[in-house]
Amino acid sequence: MDNKKNISMAVIRRLPKYQRYLGYLTEKGVERISSKELGENMGFTASQIRQDLNNFGDFGQQGYGYNVKDLYRELSSILGMDRNYKVVIIGAGNIGQALANYTRFEKLNFHLCGIFDVNPKIIGLKIRDVEIKDIDEMVGFFKDNPIDIGIIFTTSASAQKVSDILVNNQVKAILNFAPIDLNVPADIIVQNVHLSDSLLTLSCLLNQNS
Amino acid sequence: MDNKKNISMAVIRRLPKYQRYLGYLTEKGVERISSKELGENMGFTASQIRQDLNNFGDFGQQGYGYNVKDLYRELSSILGMDRNYKVVIIGAGNIGQALANYTRFEKLNFHLCGIFDVNPKIIGLKIRDVEIKDIDEMVGFFKDNPIDIGIIFTTSASAQKVSDILVNNQVKAILNFAPIDLNVPADIIVQNVHLSDSLLTLSCLLNQNS
Repeated sequence: MDNKKNISMAVIRRLPKYQRYLGYLTEKGVERISSKELGENMGFTASQIRQDLNNFGDFGQQGYGYNVKDLYRELSSILGMDRNYKVVIIGAGNIGQALANYTRFEKLNFHLCGIFDVNPKIIGLKIRDVEIKDIDEMVGFFKDNPIDIGIIFTTSASAQKVSDILVNNQVKAILNFAPIDLNVPADIIVQNVHLSDSLLTLSCLLNQNS
Repeated sequence: MDNKKNISMAVIRRLPKYQRYLGYLTEKGVERISSKELGENMGFTASQIRQDLNNFGDFGQQGYGYNVKDLYRELSSILGMDRNYKVVIIGAGNIGQALANYTRFEKLNFHLCGIFDVNPKIIGLKIRDVEIKDIDEMVGFFKDNPIDIGIIFTTSASAQKVSDILVNNQVKAILNFAPIDLNVPADIIVQNVHLSDSLLTLSCLLNQNS
């Protein structure tokens, strides 16, 4: 993939959907599919699907379509699913703890290596064999444990400070659930999951439809 | 708002960010701001901000910029934050329970009216005074309780069935956390929060950067 830097985020965000659907087809025993059928089943146009996939290689064959199993394997590899990632969670409130217990986590090769919080009542507790540590121990922890991804579930007030610590300790990517937009250097990858923004988007659409 | 049907989802998804940032400025006592400053602080161009906001009205003044408090109030209203929404949660596993306990929920005027699950071990338990009911009681419940928004935290296998029940019972919007894409009629509003897609997007970007 030579031109990998030029692929838009919109394309990259569609890849997990394609991969998921091809997994479903593989399970159903479907061997091949045209971009037209794939598009119709997924709500995209055939040409969008061809364009998206052409960013990553030459997977289809004129008149045959895509080999489902091969394309599933290729997409899984492009998505980095054959690699392992080391993850820490910062903020072990309700949602942080629920995600720490999220069963799909390990299936996707995300290995939870550390959980940090400020609340003395929960420091020392374990979630899936990982002890919740004091947030003040984070910097020391990173010295011995290189981490790929930090997941932030703290309050808005603490999120930027936590993000700075992650960035200063060679964490390469952040999944941010705190309802603020983080300031990070350009080479750090950030994905936001803003639950209240999703609720407000629904609210806005309902408000307009009524 | 006459042309409300034509506003793109991308614009609508940015509104909560604008509203959140203007709330922050209001708290800091900032009285007015230009589209240029707003853009610089939020990582957008001034022209994008002007275009986005022009979809909803004529808020700024040449040479003055935006009145922060007024724009905050207008955006809150466009986002439907002065309305109340009745919500049910279906699927009270770890993440469903955590969201039922989510404190920002009520602040955003989303009132949790019902929680449903299939697990007999948790049916009858209460989360914030709302009893977890058997999923088989859903249809009867909707007859007496008109609901605006259904939040789906079930397995992929059950999500479409649950979605059909919601749609057949006049629920207008769905927030879907199950990792599948739902089939719904065109007038039903769906927002997806696919945690595993967010993780895979991070994984893909890390994979490409290495």
